[in-house]
Amino acid sequence: MQKGMVALCAGLALAPALAADAPAAPPAAAAPSMADILAASPAGDWRALDPNNTLYMELPKGRVIIELAPDFAPKHAANIRALAKEGYFDGAFIVRSQDNYVVQWGWPEDMPRKVKKAHAAEKAEFFRAVSPDLPYTPLPDPDTYAATVGFTAGFPAARDAEGKSTWLVHCYAMLGAGRGDTADSGGGAELYAVNGHSPRHLDKNVTLVGRIVQGMELLSVMPRGTGPLGFYETPAERTAIKSVRLEADVPTAERANLEALKTESPTFVKLIDARRFRRESWFLDPSGHLGVCNMPIPVRKRGS
Amino acid sequence: MQKGMVALCAGLALAPALAADAPAAPPAAAAPSMADILAASPAGDWRALDPNNTLYMELPKGRVIIELAPDFAPKHAANIRALAKEGYFDGAFIVRSQDNYVVQWGWPEDMPRKVKKAHAAEKAEFFRAVSPDLPYTPLPDPDTYAATVGFTAGFPAARDAEGKSTWLVHCYAMLGAGRGDTADSGGGAELYAVNGHSPRHLDKNVTLVGRIVQGMELLSVMPRGTGPLGFYETPAERTAIKSVRLEADVPTAERANLEALKTESPTFVKLIDARRFRRESWFLDPSGHLGVCNMPIPVRKRGS
Repeated sequence: MQKGMVALCAGLALAPALAADAPAAPPAAAAPSMADILAASPAGDWRALDPNNTLYMELPKGRVIIELAPDFAPKHAANIRALAKEGYFDGAFIVRSQDNYVVQWGWPEDMPRKVKKAHAAEKAEFFRAVSPDLPYTPLPDPDTYAATVGFTAGFPAARDAEGKSTWLVHCYAMLGAGRGDTADSGGGAELYAVNGHSPRHLDKNVTLVGRIVQGMELLSVMPRGTGPLGFYETPAERTAIKSVRLEADVPTAERANLEALKTESPTFVKLIDARRFRRESWFLDPSGHLGVCNMPIPVRKRGS
Repeated sequence: MQKGMVALCAGLALAPALAADAPAAPPAAAAPSMADILAASPAGDWRALDPNNTLYMELPKGRVIIELAPDFAPKHAANIRALAKEGYFDGAFIVRSQDNYVVQWGWPEDMPRKVKKAHAAEKAEFFRAVSPDLPYTPLPDPDTYAATVGFTAGFPAARDAEGKSTWLVHCYAMLGAGRGDTADSGGGAELYAVNGHSPRHLDKNVTLVGRIVQGMELLSVMPRGTGPLGFYETPAERTAIKSVRLEADVPTAERANLEALKTESPTFVKLIDARRFRRESWFLDPSGHLGVCNMPIPVRKRGS
């Protein structure tokens, strides 16, 4: 009984809606589960992560893998690549862990480090123009913060009501470039990842530069800092970062070789439906709704 | 500069909206900040936590304080009181920590424990009828999962389109009673707290019984379990629970004496406005939107 609790169970049977405000019934009984859909996905629905857009952050307890989002933050992505290449983050620290908000890393105030060839700051990339070469898979349910939400290029994204502007949104494990009080004061030398409920009020206030695609559980358990904003108060509380390297600079034998499901693929569209209407037998109310930050974006070892 | 990053800054100035999809301007410039509003709140806008609805869970690293929600889950609240009184959780364990989902505690499968006077299960309390004696402070923005969302009796809640049914929602730090495959198989002997983005698809699928009002940061950092659903695979990974006691059974000198802001108070309504339109100078786009799981429900030491 215990292992079935609050579980994503394997059952396939369609459960009846119990609640007073139950949504319309799912379109088909005994429809495939999320696992079934992934197992049946064609290889062409997956894309290998680009070694030039993939970062490995090595922590004492393991590796965190980041995918950069050059379609949304090209300047920041280029600068973060440059920072990794010059070894900027090697020996830096996790400096902040604020509960239900963000975990942040870089060089602490008492150990300032200057960038070399990389830039200390970049112009803000809070949003960009919608473009036909950027496919968008929208979600049907209303969003609290934006006219529409969905997925573009492997990331959760929003669009304005006119369909002209688009931006990445602050879901769990999204990666942002910390900034000071002005828009153009961030550049990637301070990075943060969302470790709790989506702080969507940060959307269009900070440049989101990518997403943690593996190893987020190493960051989310960082002890919460007791200083203002969750900063650690003593150097001993900080966790040291061994290195941050671009995958392209890592020997082939050490690479993770990950692939991500294309968010414009038929498989992803099927997954959205499977998450909107939860058909696992444990769910007594299939929900019939899906938030942009409640949709996993599958990543796996290539060809697995 | 670093400390201002991704911060809830103290600045009061009204910042202009920058983004293409900026919301309407806030109603008043230089409006008070959240801290200002709390500092000016009258004592009558606060309520002392009821010692018969407050639980202390003592962990090796400190105390977690829970407020039960008898207005929504009276049977479960009564049963959890009974479980605490018979010492059911004393010596139990954190058995599960699944990243971006839930942390769960109770007795592991290999150490089953029977309830004494308490019940092993209660009838589901997934939702209840709207009642005039339950004030509701709704939020103006759309919600993805429910017709309306807001706050009732100190908890985040939703209502159906007809205004007849209401239920608690799965925000960060909300507390639920794990269940098996059937609706009436939970009862509070297995409890979980949300440790990531709100899993709102669990709404109306599990009975929510309360909220962690202090000490959530002790639960959110529990190392993630590597077994299915984030269960720990070996006994050594589990964290032991010293005790779970009802505050009413704790000597007065050991009590935390907390009070919560009434969610139907004028102060709380002002706070909602201050969170919808972020007036701190760091925010370049004030957002103009607020999700039900993005609104803090202030709790403090009584009279502080």
